[in-house]
Amino acid sequence: MMATLGLIEYEDASSEVRAVYDDIMSTRKTDWINNFWKAIAHDPATLRRTWESVKQVMAPGELDPLVKELIYVAVSATTGCEYCIASHTAGARKKGMTDGMFAELMAVVGMANETNRLAKGYQVEVDEAFRV
Amino acid sequence: MMATLGLIEYEDASSEVRAVYDDIMSTRKTDWINNFWKAIAHDPATLRRTWESVKQVMAPGELDPLVKELIYVAVSATTGCEYCIASHTAGARKKGMTDGMFAELMAVVGMANETNRLAKGYQVEVDEAFRV
Amino acid sequence: MMATLGLIEYEDASSEVRAVYDDIMSTRKTDWINNFWKAIAHDPATLRRTWESVKQVMAPGELDPLVKELIYVAVSATTGCEYCIASHTAGARKKGMTDGMFAELMAVVGMANETNRLAKGYQVEVDEAFRV
Amino acid sequence: MMATLGLIEYEDASSEVRAVYDDIMSTRKTDWINNFWKAIAHDPATLRRTWESVKQVMAPGELDPLVKELIYVAVSATTGCEYCIASHTAGARKKGMTDGMFAELMAVVGMANETNRLAKGYQVEVDEAFRV
Amino acid sequence: MMATLGLIEYEDASSEVRAVYDDIMSTRKTDWINNFWKAIAHDPATLRRTWESVKQVMAPGELDPLVKELIYVAVSATTGCEYCIASHTAGARKKGMTDGMFAELMAVVGMANETNRLAKGYQVEVDEAFRV
Amino acid sequence: MMATLGLIEYEDASSEVRAVYDDIMSTRKTDWINNFWKAIAHDPATLRRTWESVKQVMAPGELDPLVKELIYVAVSATTGCEYCIASHTAGARKKGMTDGMFAELMAVVGMANETNRLAKGYQVEVDEAFRV
Repeated sequence: MMATLGLIEYEDASSEVRAVYDDIMSTRKTDWINNFWKAIAHDPATLRRTWESVKQVMAPGELDPLVKELIYVAVSATTGCEYCIASHTAGARKKGMTDGMFAELMAVVGMANETNRLAKGYQVEVDEAFRV
Repeated sequence: MMATLGLIEYEDASSEVRAVYDDIMSTRKTDWINNFWKAIAHDPATLRRTWESVKQVMAPGELDPLVKELIYVAVSATTGCEYCIASHTAGARKKGMTDGMFAELMAVVGMANETNRLAKGYQVEVDEAFRV
Repeated sequence: MMATLGLIEYEDASSEVRAVYDDIMSTRKTDWINNFWKAIAHDPATLRRTWESVKQVMAPGELDPLVKELIYVAVSATTGCEYCIASHTAGARKKGMTDGMFAELMAVVGMANETNRLAKGYQVEVDEAFRV
Repeated sequence: MMATLGLIEYEDASSEVRAVYDDIMSTRKTDWINNFWKAIAHDPATLRRTWESVKQVMAPGELDPLVKELIYVAVSATTGCEYCIASHTAGARKKGMTDGMFAELMAVVGMANETNRLAKGYQVEVDEAFRV
Repeated sequence: MMATLGLIEYEDASSEVRAVYDDIMSTRKTDWINNFWKAIAHDPATLRRTWESVKQVMAPGELDPLVKELIYVAVSATTGCEYCIASHTAGARKKGMTDGMFAELMAVVGMANETNRLAKGYQVEVDEAFRV
Repeated sequence: MMATLGLIEYEDASSEVRAVYDDIMSTRKTDWINNFWKAIAHDPATLRRTWESVKQVMAPGELDPLVKELIYVAVSATTGCEYCIASHTAGARKKGMTDGMFAELMAVVGMANETNRLAKGYQVEVDEAFRV
């Protein structure tokens, strides 16, 4: 197996799961499903809910889809999720991320993680000007 | 005090520290220094190194400065650094972040943190197609 | 090797370490020791202290042992410890966790990680009604 | 204000937001809305999606609602979200969590966070028996 | 209150709890108990286990007690536990930490958090020479 | 490849990158470059900045270099960065870390992560005596 409950392939999927797989492939204009969805497909409610949420959240809005992918990679590098780093780096590339953009993204993620700990460790209080 | 070692105000700062404060204010086109820098100013080497790094990393490049601020906020919300959330949200606003952009940013950060744990918890292996 | 200091097998263990191994096997009604204990056995004080603590904490109380294993998996998925996810998922199964329970557990862990960041990122203050 | 974008009270809410507030109050059998929802209500799509997801995930299933609240608290204590610790501890109490259950929950959360780092730091490989 | 279950003062404590408080005060050569212990004293088993563990772990060994306190602060700044940063910074000072040592500690903690994310984000594989 | 953008070997490196590689090898008195630097070398500015920062931060000061390496390992075990745990454990060994010191380091890291969550979960307020 390649996941706790195994992976559900299209040919073995229920019609409920297939409907989500179909929507993933048509939305992403691709002909395959990556392991993440096949792993959570054991729980069709979570599969559907997660996909509908990702689709809604990653759609073009005031932020463009590439920026949203960059943010996804930033979070994944910060929490240390290898799967998510790999899949969203690939996703960002597909949406136009260059090597230079990736390098800048990582530089910002690194600095943010550094100064986050300096601010915490030095016990810095929020300035009056920044208070909501 | 408002930080472990206290805050160093401009009028009490050494010329070495003042030089960094001056560069922060002129680079940011502002006339004040926020607490973070005043807190780490007790260690002038860290003050200078951190500021030079932040200045380099956040400068316009292939990613524009607003996108970089959004990434900074994404990391800070993920690690839970209140100071950094407050200061970089203010910074992003100054660079043009609207309420709608902030809301979309948060929605992506939330989803990424959710799916990061699903991928980890379900022990999903990286697809061959995503391997570097 | 399979750990920084290597693994200490039963036949190579001191009597002090064997005593802990014996207690682990008899408490868990099993005839083998998993790598975690063999890795920290290089430090018999930590081995004993950690095992005694785990035994005390995971024993039946007001919460039943299965619920405690679910909580262990929830923490491990959140911090991203692959070893701990794998071992405690196995432990939970042994105590009765079904596939459906695992899926519900993951769904809650995912949502909690999502709303944790929304609450942080939106800088939401604790309601008076929730204050201790 | 008490949140980045402020809090939206019921009387100032759009009918779309009110519909969600009404559903929260009727589902939870309460007559008030806590700050979290009022803060994210600036983004009605996120408000609705998050509420529908929480409602689905926290509903009775193979795990009972109290166990789900305990898991929520475990995640929140691990990531360090004060708002979430406070609100979900209150939620767990309402569903029957005793002081003794809370203490056991915390003991497990503490041990899991400890052994997670021992497993990582000692670079322990997953036992063959635990592999998926 | 100042904690979920409130704080248990010495005069209100059971003899079991008092015995731990007495040992804390005599071990630390102090005449007061900080809030952390008073908060977990609602669970005497956790109080005793945690104190015995901390006492054992923080005792002089191959690493001296000041170095151990510095490590404690490093972890606390990384996870973002305000209580722990404040109490262990005070503890480190009592054991001889100077302002200069604190500043160097923070600089290392910051850099480590930065390079941790660069290594994760760039998906760097462990060199053969570093493998256990 | 062994990293998102691949690894840049010395013979393929620009003179700018080689200058950093040369300084790494001469500072560390070694004749090879580990993967981390080869991975970030795709971004010469980040390579130089990160190396200059690490060199400055890890140099002898009020804390000796071994203590600084221990702190680096403590952070890496806490965030769960496998690469960083492996490389800095090797670095600490080179600077004199014994097996006993490693074991004590891990014991402190484990306890700190445990009590960090107890303090958060029990919502313990900072004692007046610890406030900055």
